[in-house]
Amino acid sequence: MIQVGVVGGTGYTGVELLRLLVLHPEVELKVVTSRSESGRKISDLYPNLRGHLDIEFSDPTVAELATCDLVFFATPNGVAMKSVPELLARGVKVIDLAADFRIEDAALWSEWYGMEHACPELLEEAVYGLPETSRDKIASARLVANPGCYPTAVQLGFLPLIKAGLVNTENLIADTKSGVSGAGRGASVGALLCEASESMMAYKAGGHRHHPEISQGLQWFSESKVGLTFVPHLTPMIRGIHATLYAPLNQDVDDLQALFEDAYKDEPFVDVMPAGSHPETRSVKGANTCRIAVHKPQNANTVIILSVIDNLVKGAAGQAVQNMNLMMGLEETAGLNQVALLP
Amino acid sequence: MIQVGVVGGTGYTGVELLRLLVLHPEVELKVVTSRSESGRKISDLYPNLRGHLDIEFSDPTVAELATCDLVFFATPNGVAMKSVPELLARGVKVIDLAADFRIEDAALWSEWYGMEHACPELLEEAVYGLPETSRDKIASARLVANPGCYPTAVQLGFLPLIKAGLVNTENLIADTKSGVSGAGRGASVGALLCEASESMMAYKAGGHRHHPEISQGLQWFSESKVGLTFVPHLTPMIRGIHATLYAPLNQDVDDLQALFEDAYKDEPFVDVMPAGSHPETRSVKGANTCRIAVHKPQNANTVIILSVIDNLVKGAAGQAVQNMNLMMGLEETAGLNQVALLP
Amino acid sequence: MIQVGVVGGTGYTGVELLRLLVLHPEVELKVVTSRSESGRKISDLYPNLRGHLDIEFSDPTVAELATCDLVFFATPNGVAMKSVPELLARGVKVIDLAADFRIEDAALWSEWYGMEHACPELLEEAVYGLPETSRDKIASARLVANPGCYPTAVQLGFLPLIKAGLVNTENLIADTKSGVSGAGRGASVGALLCEASESMMAYKAGGHRHHPEISQGLQWFSESKVGLTFVPHLTPMIRGIHATLYAPLNQDVDDLQALFEDAYKDEPFVDVMPAGSHPETRSVKGANTCRIAVHKPQNANTVIILSVIDNLVKGAAGQAVQNMNLMMGLEETAGLNQVALLP
Amino acid sequence: MIQVGVVGGTGYTGVELLRLLVLHPEVELKVVTSRSESGRKISDLYPNLRGHLDIEFSDPTVAELATCDLVFFATPNGVAMKSVPELLARGVKVIDLAADFRIEDAALWSEWYGMEHACPELLEEAVYGLPETSRDKIASARLVANPGCYPTAVQLGFLPLIKAGLVNTENLIADTKSGVSGAGRGASVGALLCEASESMMAYKAGGHRHHPEISQGLQWFSESKVGLTFVPHLTPMIRGIHATLYAPLNQDVDDLQALFEDAYKDEPFVDVMPAGSHPETRSVKGANTCRIAVHKPQNANTVIILSVIDNLVKGAAGQAVQNMNLMMGLEETAGLNQVALLP
Repeated sequence: MIQVGVVGGTGYTGVELLRLLVLHPEVELKVVTSRSESGRKISDLYPNLRGHLDIEFSDPTVAELATCDLVFFATPNGVAMKSVPELLARGVKVIDLAADFRIEDAALWSEWYGMEHACPELLEEAVYGLPETSRDKIASARLVANPGCYPTAVQLGFLPLIKAGLVNTENLIADTKSGVSGAGRGASVGALLCEASESMMAYKAGGHRHHPEISQGLQWFSESKVGLTFVPHLTPMIRGIHATLYAPLNQDVDDLQALFEDAYKDEPFVDVMPAGSHPETRSVKGANTCRIAVHKPQNANTVIILSVIDNLVKGAAGQAVQNMNLMMGLEETAGLNQVALLP
Repeated sequence: MIQVGVVGGTGYTGVELLRLLVLHPEVELKVVTSRSESGRKISDLYPNLRGHLDIEFSDPTVAELATCDLVFFATPNGVAMKSVPELLARGVKVIDLAADFRIEDAALWSEWYGMEHACPELLEEAVYGLPETSRDKIASARLVANPGCYPTAVQLGFLPLIKAGLVNTENLIADTKSGVSGAGRGASVGALLCEASESMMAYKAGGHRHHPEISQGLQWFSESKVGLTFVPHLTPMIRGIHATLYAPLNQDVDDLQALFEDAYKDEPFVDVMPAGSHPETRSVKGANTCRIAVHKPQNANTVIILSVIDNLVKGAAGQAVQNMNLMMGLEETAGLNQVALLP
Repeated sequence: MIQVGVVGGTGYTGVELLRLLVLHPEVELKVVTSRSESGRKISDLYPNLRGHLDIEFSDPTVAELATCDLVFFATPNGVAMKSVPELLARGVKVIDLAADFRIEDAALWSEWYGMEHACPELLEEAVYGLPETSRDKIASARLVANPGCYPTAVQLGFLPLIKAGLVNTENLIADTKSGVSGAGRGASVGALLCEASESMMAYKAGGHRHHPEISQGLQWFSESKVGLTFVPHLTPMIRGIHATLYAPLNQDVDDLQALFEDAYKDEPFVDVMPAGSHPETRSVKGANTCRIAVHKPQNANTVIILSVIDNLVKGAAGQAVQNMNLMMGLEETAGLNQVALLP
Repeated sequence: MIQVGVVGGTGYTGVELLRLLVLHPEVELKVVTSRSESGRKISDLYPNLRGHLDIEFSDPTVAELATCDLVFFATPNGVAMKSVPELLARGVKVIDLAADFRIEDAALWSEWYGMEHACPELLEEAVYGLPETSRDKIASARLVANPGCYPTAVQLGFLPLIKAGLVNTENLIADTKSGVSGAGRGASVGALLCEASESMMAYKAGGHRHHPEISQGLQWFSESKVGLTFVPHLTPMIRGIHATLYAPLNQDVDDLQALFEDAYKDEPFVDVMPAGSHPETRSVKGANTCRIAVHKPQNANTVIILSVIDNLVKGAAGQAVQNMNLMMGLEETAGLNQVALLP
């Protein structure tokens, strides 16, 4: 059994991680920390865990975390980077579900996240944890940067086209819709039921932090320069991301469907739907799956890709468990064999 | 007082029309027809009208409708065209809230709507009822084709740029999100709460009937050819359309904000929000307003326009009342002075 | 035109009051105060008011409020009582939408609201503003305590039976369900969309502040002692209260339906539905109506009454406007002729 | 591995059963029938099962079903009873998730379900499948009647008090709230998102089919006559039942909390919450758990019990799997170790 710790177990990403880890056949959940809830029984805060998890939140100390084989950080941006060097030094592997290690360029990171990076020397070592593109690197990594939710859905949608060199990468558009859990469990007026339900709105159309992360990830696989327009929207539901992607083909393509099916034929968590499908976010609710459909251009050469994930699973906690499995030499799908809850 | 009739008062467009008409200071609601509910008290079906409307649904007969000054058709596509010629002949003005008279080209209409047009000779006379572009024609029309919900939000968003010749019209993208009431009140599995709530999905990415309507409306004001990619999405809420529009600028533009403000400065029902705004659909819930915000390109030259309406009001019944006011020489805003219900 | 002020216009009760007042034909909205938002345009905070209300939030000062004929307090409990004596002294009439003047007994009030009353000498003068029971007193009042949302729905449901002496008042049960807007616009974890949607829960089953208010209101009209069990529930919707009331009949009753119809036959805002009806909260969404249905006992002698209101309208702002109309000698229904927004 | 069949796999109860069975370690899902969808791949209808279940719907024939060890009927009322005798005769065990075998008295059944019973001779043999009361009988049964959703939540809440003889059983009240999935997947206007969301309503206050089932189940354990008032409500959410139960104590009781904790201390799927708790339905979403809290009387002697389940799991498919485990000699909790999906 692998000994695992979770730092910051009180947010939505945290509780989803706990849900997956308590049922994981190879994991012992040894320590879950929370500065604010220290000493409180975890199942008091999250009654869904009653009967499944009997420990208390503890204070986050390196000494205690160092007894684990692997530690997840489900903390706000800027927290993990303060403890990661010490944990790595003690031989603990780390997966950060926040953004601290997602951007290679420390200056670019600071620009978007508004703080100095605490350990820029680790940025090169950190592996961007999208298993579909970096499985081998993840398997041998000490430190994995778990991708953001939007970046996961958008990259998995665009990459087969970009890798094949079929699109003009300078004019990509990603129109993305997220459930409200993406905003976290912090008390904020904008995420109240009475504000966010029965309404739809774009936000940060002037620039969102996931923009440089997506661009970086696409650029890694593109010979031409990537130019992206990215508009996220707040959608009145709890879970789910729907990415609608628009890309101009730079040549005639015979069979887009086959291209996608081929690209993901060996992937356990990417499901290319039949041609003409419209994946629903609820078809992945609670599951670590990304479902993708491709649609031929309606006009000129603009191909349309639809990509859905559960932002808390494939977009966060599930992908983190997938990365843990890879890093610890377990079956990649261990503990992730969930069927989406429908209806 | 104007004598008014409504054909097909049982759907969502119908009941919204009734809500607006019973409170309209210049209107007497004389006859509301429904083949299926004939003889039933309207307020039995729609308890919100108890105390406001005391009449029964009646059978739709030309004789009875001919006693009205103006008749609204809130019927499925293909119904209005069968009765309109006779009503016009008897001197009754008509507003069709369905699609029968929206497309000038009868062959194109047949292609998308799957039936022969019953009175193609009226297509030229029919006026497309978007007051912001056709106020004068509407005022003198006998027959008005009330625009579709998506077409209203999309055209009002794109038109200032197109009229000014500032965008490459061949590569327009409209990513639109609609509440479930757009699917109507018919019993269908896809519109059940358990199917449509807590989920997001695109639909008809291969082609939607509003595509030719939008293209036609944009082309009227464009010197270059209009090419549009249009992807509608089903959003888990009752009312509201959010159109996110992407257009490539063909030149540097100093002040997009001023362009939009100027375009709509005299419009009572189009509200250009301050620069950088993100309009919420709930800010127009129950109101006849379209709120628009413009965002500068993030990447290259792709301008982003956000446009929201209530699909049942500015996207259907409210716009129909606005058209009625114009056709009957009333104050354009009569009966439409609603404040959106928020929260 | 009556000059009106609103203290605390930033909460949900406040914005609903503004919605009703800007459209009221006899009212000029002169001052809207908010300590936290002072100087900000009201329509910046509430875009639904753009084009309807052009003033800014101002600081709450007695001097400015004293220029009004009537002032509404849409503030947290304990705020109004600090300013009311001075406003009354300056000849301003006051309606408090909070609880400061609802309970006659100052000690009982302190017990439930956890503070000393600032002006207990006004408790006797204050009129409990349920027009259906106290129309004449309200008309001559200087100070009206606007009833709570649950108390409105529950009292209107029970009172016809209690006044007629038909029920054993010692064993009344009120099982009530409220939309989340009842929790207000303050940022709290429990009212987040991700916490409160897709779930149902009781709260304060050990005792809720509306308990003594309801008991007091029922006792006023009962010869026997009133004993009430009151369990409120948080329901995943924005607006609406559904009260399901259970009362043991103390005798055979021929025609409960007629009793209720007769009790409310002259009331403009209480609608007794046909026998066997099940009123939906959405049938009063945005309207100042209470709809009631009575059901015969299924078992023994327990009569069931269903009573629905919009908690923000008949349960708060709408009833306050109704009270204002009475206090200022206007038509009782002025500005309240709303049709519920359905769907 | 046990060979299992599901008749009627297209409804919500059916798909939930499939979700549980495909992950059950001891079950092979051999045949899933649907008259209307015969020949269609199951995962076409339910994309959440893509990758988990590769078979097609087949026509329901006894010959094919007879190859199974156990068959579940997830069909409308009145369907199972037509095939059950033949299946039993062939040695197949049966669990009916509908109501055909829930009521001992065939005449009473006919009265509520509006049809003659096809095999009244089996009513005595059939075991009512509430494991918490009938574990041993279920273990040896050939035919189990899976309880209704409301009856499960209500009986588990009332029974500890009734068994202890502590309440006046003639005046029980069950005010219950159900998510919309309880209405099934059939297309009906009342279950549309636009009708059922953002609203709350009671239904069948004049009498609901679960009334005789609950009364029968409570009467089995009561020495005095059971009299019940039962009012169900439609709640704007997908899953969940919240039962709020009111019972008059017939004596002083020292420790209600201990009574409940003791009653359920060995039950794997009943969780008695700490005193003063308010269980949320979301705390059991997707899980086979019933969470219960007891509250002391506020007034006189009326004790309040709060009981929540997921109507599709402990209220249907999960309980059916629990019954299957018992009937087939498996671990009772096999395949049911789910953590509720929260948020």
